Amino acid sequence: MSKKATVFVRLKDGVLDPQGVTIAKALNQMGYDEFTSVRSGRFFELEIEDNEANLDQRLEEVCSKLLSNPVIENYRIEKG
Amino acid sequence: MSKKATVFVRLKDGVLDPQGVTIAKALNQMGYDEFTSVRSGRFFELEIEDNEANLDQRLEEVCSKLLSNPVIENYRIEKG
Repeated sequence: MSKKATVFVRLKDGVLDPQGVTIAKALNQMGYDEFTSVRSGRFFELEIEDNEANLDQRLEEVCSKLLSNPVIENYRIEKG
Repeated sequence: MSKKATVFVRLKDGVLDPQGVTIAKALNQMGYDEFTSVRSGRFFELEIEDNEANLDQRLEEVCSKLLSNPVIENYRIEKG
């Protein structure tokens, strides 16, 4: 059976996000002064052919090994 | 008053996603064969000092002008 999951990866609070800072500055320079802070992140939409009994555990492994850097990033898994 | 919004940007269906393809291959090579497809995307967490009457319209402008490339990408705005 085919399943879907989306993994959201973002920098931990307190970790500097140069991309977000740059975007916020650009917005302000373009006249959009109301945007006071921007934090950027990535997400991954996974399609899963679920033949494994321990899918949850394998999904956690994939997130911490390949999709995120646990030293500076958090991840969140959303199923379906 | 301070508000929050998150903008999700993803490639349109049918647009090739080399990053996603590479991640899917890497997962399969690592023994995670159940992941048949990966699509990557970005998101932006915005903090907004809302003094503007037409925030919704300005948010749409920001998404199409700076945060996404409307030719190949879709965006979705989630408030709060």
